[in-house]
Amino acid sequence: MAAAGDASRWVSVDTIADLLGGRRLGDGQYVIRGIRPLLSAQSSDIAFLANPRYVAQLGQTAAGCVIVGPEQQGLAATLPSAIVCDDPYAAFARLTRWWAARFHRREPPPGIHPTAWVDPGAIVDPSASVGPFAAVAEGATIGPRAVLGAHCVVEAGAHVGADAWVAARVFLGERCILGSRTIVHAGVVIGADGFGFAPEAGRWAKIAQLGAVRVGDDVEIGANTCIDRGALDDTVIAEGVKLDNLIQIGHNVRIGAHTAMAGCVGVAGSARIGAHCTFGGGAIVLGHLEIVDAVHVSAATVVTRSILRPGHYSGVFPMDDNASWEKNAATLRQLHRLRERVRGLERALPQSRVLPGNPTP
Amino acid sequence: MAAAGDASRWVSVDTIADLLGGRRLGDGQYVIRGIRPLLSAQSSDIAFLANPRYVAQLGQTAAGCVIVGPEQQGLAATLPSAIVCDDPYAAFARLTRWWAARFHRREPPPGIHPTAWVDPGAIVDPSASVGPFAAVAEGATIGPRAVLGAHCVVEAGAHVGADAWVAARVFLGERCILGSRTIVHAGVVIGADGFGFAPEAGRWAKIAQLGAVRVGDDVEIGANTCIDRGALDDTVIAEGVKLDNLIQIGHNVRIGAHTAMAGCVGVAGSARIGAHCTFGGGAIVLGHLEIVDAVHVSAATVVTRSILRPGHYSGVFPMDDNASWEKNAATLRQLHRLRERVRGLERALPQSRVLPGNPTP
Amino acid sequence: MAAAGDASRWVSVDTIADLLGGRRLGDGQYVIRGIRPLLSAQSSDIAFLANPRYVAQLGQTAAGCVIVGPEQQGLAATLPSAIVCDDPYAAFARLTRWWAARFHRREPPPGIHPTAWVDPGAIVDPSASVGPFAAVAEGATIGPRAVLGAHCVVEAGAHVGADAWVAARVFLGERCILGSRTIVHAGVVIGADGFGFAPEAGRWAKIAQLGAVRVGDDVEIGANTCIDRGALDDTVIAEGVKLDNLIQIGHNVRIGAHTAMAGCVGVAGSARIGAHCTFGGGAIVLGHLEIVDAVHVSAATVVTRSILRPGHYSGVFPMDDNASWEKNAATLRQLHRLRERVRGLERALPQSRVLPGNPTP
Repeated sequence: MAAAGDASRWVSVDTIADLLGGRRLGDGQYVIRGIRPLLSAQSSDIAFLANPRYVAQLGQTAAGCVIVGPEQQGLAATLPSAIVCDDPYAAFARLTRWWAARFHRREPPPGIHPTAWVDPGAIVDPSASVGPFAAVAEGATIGPRAVLGAHCVVEAGAHVGADAWVAARVFLGERCILGSRTIVHAGVVIGADGFGFAPEAGRWAKIAQLGAVRVGDDVEIGANTCIDRGALDDTVIAEGVKLDNLIQIGHNVRIGAHTAMAGCVGVAGSARIGAHCTFGGGAIVLGHLEIVDAVHVSAATVVTRSILRPGHYSGVFPMDDNASWEKNAATLRQLHRLRERVRGLERALPQSRVLPGNPTP
Repeated sequence: MAAAGDASRWVSVDTIADLLGGRRLGDGQYVIRGIRPLLSAQSSDIAFLANPRYVAQLGQTAAGCVIVGPEQQGLAATLPSAIVCDDPYAAFARLTRWWAARFHRREPPPGIHPTAWVDPGAIVDPSASVGPFAAVAEGATIGPRAVLGAHCVVEAGAHVGADAWVAARVFLGERCILGSRTIVHAGVVIGADGFGFAPEAGRWAKIAQLGAVRVGDDVEIGANTCIDRGALDDTVIAEGVKLDNLIQIGHNVRIGAHTAMAGCVGVAGSARIGAHCTFGGGAIVLGHLEIVDAVHVSAATVVTRSILRPGHYSGVFPMDDNASWEKNAATLRQLHRLRERVRGLERALPQSRVLPGNPTP
Repeated sequence: MAAAGDASRWVSVDTIADLLGGRRLGDGQYVIRGIRPLLSAQSSDIAFLANPRYVAQLGQTAAGCVIVGPEQQGLAATLPSAIVCDDPYAAFARLTRWWAARFHRREPPPGIHPTAWVDPGAIVDPSASVGPFAAVAEGATIGPRAVLGAHCVVEAGAHVGADAWVAARVFLGERCILGSRTIVHAGVVIGADGFGFAPEAGRWAKIAQLGAVRVGDDVEIGANTCIDRGALDDTVIAEGVKLDNLIQIGHNVRIGAHTAMAGCVGVAGSARIGAHCTFGGGAIVLGHLEIVDAVHVSAATVVTRSILRPGHYSGVFPMDDNASWEKNAATLRQLHRLRERVRGLERALPQSRVLPGNPTP
């Protein structure tokens, strides 16, 4: 591994411009050793400007190179070098991926680690890597070039797709499937039992969870996130979905393609969520709801009913200083009575005296 | 393991009827190969109807057999077969458990895996199964027929009860106890230190957590859930409690028998929760509160004070389209002033003009 | 390990008084076998009184010794023994730490466990302990007297500081750093990728996360908590920070010294949080915000904007019985209209008739 600031880690501006398919301004042989934000970049760093709001930082940066859009190329020309791209943010993302592949070490090293336990009945592609103490059960399959980190557990009949990167300490339960190029971070649990019980004589009788989990291609799943197996049918995460850390996905949930959820979101059982949705951190979705495509839910919002129209939805108590909150919260507990009082006042006032523009329920 | 759709996996309707103690209608030799919901069932599947709301689905289903209550037996008679049970939902739950035991593989396979590390000072019943890379410390005990999955850690003096099923990657800290027939899913942490610190000269001085965790019989604990050890006394989870995934139980908490909590619930230290309660997903219970038996808390509700009467409690900001939410939230921050304004109006209007039925504070 | 109630576990009151630097009252040879709360203590237990609110419990306790402040020494004199300390709570905290070190077993036992995998390129101090199945990669360093529990994973270039205690099943990603005397509980994930994606043609393009995580000295991190690596710069947790269980810290977050967060808190990317702050359980902090020193955020509050003044902030929907909540929540969705109606009433009423003391917007 090359440590941050390692002198052997460098690349020319022209190499980066070729990689990104961008147009180079200034010195193509200029040496770049790191990627940094505009304001903290040094002369050996490359930075980027994606949001025009921060255009003033172009005049303040010490970066040796900057990735900009066509409209900022004039301002960028004062720097030692620049690369002009149509979509600077996507170009920056591409550069980070190339940089990580070239300069950062990805665990585990290739091959099957001597400490791993792979059942003779498992099918592991010879090009796959399996890290220390990983345990692959009979009947499981690990696809070409897949990486399975330290302490992973892959149960019977489960499948890890081609080019998947499964970090350390991931649990993949029996018959669960990970698509190609999926990335699964440490501590993830895929295929634990869904939370299903039938009340019976004052106790909870377990409903065995007979389904599995199917995760599509190009999905990324954050650390310690949990996706439960279905009760009868499977839980399904469609291609391109991105889940952050510590998310709970209940049994039988379906999440459509390219939907993204930030940390700590909870989705209760049997919810059906569309494609291209986004959920802010800590949002909660109740069970058995339907959410159509292109719905955006603010952080910490509780989705208590189905959402059948695309749009942006919110529901968060506004933060305030504690004393103000206390007064407002106390009044809120009497809000319905307050409304009745307003209604009483309206009845008491002659209608003719209420000015136009005053809506009534 | 029999894969889904495996032709060797079948059972007759009469066998199921015997198992459930139900009355069979139609063809007792009819062959069942799967359990599915009414609307997605095929002719080789058995389905069930528990909620009369879905009775219309009986006319639409392609299922070869259906479990129904006595009042639906007339409608069910048009299908190839049916099984009449007094409690169709409990019967369905029983069938899923039987099905899983018969057709699904439960990890790990019997016996102590060659890769497991069991300290010579541990007492492991010969009938228990210990999975790959599990680590059982000196002085720990693993009871009869208990299953301890891959990568579990059982510390000194901990105990796993008879017939417990502890899935992969579970941590059971020193002196913590799991009752008989407990089910603990992957990633669970039982017996980490509670969060206790004394302020001392602008720093936090650690209060060592000297208690343990006692989990009763027939408890189920979901993936990546955490239950902290007590500071002085033990944290106690009574028999039959069901905890979903990613739940946090603070130190010294006591949860009464047969209480159930959905995913992402957080219970702060020293809360005492009664029996037969339910908590919706994402609910938060503050510390040192008391909640009596038979309390039902809605999802995402924050319990800020003790609840001394059984009932259903809620407190969630209603979701709305973002523009409406913004306007209402802004007004909410001035709610107390709005109430003062209403009071002013009431003072300004002669009392005689306020109509009867208008409540005043 | 000494089990709870083990007869060989005892200490005299004078020994404790010396340890705490307190003044002993009564019998210095009195034998203490446990630490318990005042109300559950037996005659062989020591208890403490820190909060004057509970002074009445001094008259009810059966404890053989009690730690009190100077103002309670008169009341304590009726007990078999007592220890007078200036700060009884800090003294109690110190006693618990001493007790745990003396009577409780800390995993793992000293040395490198035969099952651990330590890469020849790793640097492990000979005084460090590495538990069963731990995996330490090439280029990682484990400092003097550090303890690394069972199933830990330490990736390339990561560092565990001197005297750190890293419990079982902790993941420390490449180049991430833990300071001296840090305590990290089971299941923690430090250095998974931050959640960064650029939209590109209707898909999410991954932004490789090139930064790391730096955790300062004397930090404690609770079970299953996640701290993501930075996108370009590092995520930084300053010295003395205390994080409870199941907390999510996004990439590039900075948390100032001695800040404490209770369970289930979520902090989105690039938030900058000051020193000596506290966050109640389940609080959510949105991304890119700034919070100054000495800010206290109530449980379950959503911080939606920067907080630039020290103080106590809240924002929680007050819990109520479900029927009252339903009525108030329904009215809340029309709150802005209600305000318009009040404004209409105010316009309709002659100003002269509105009493003084009635605030208007």
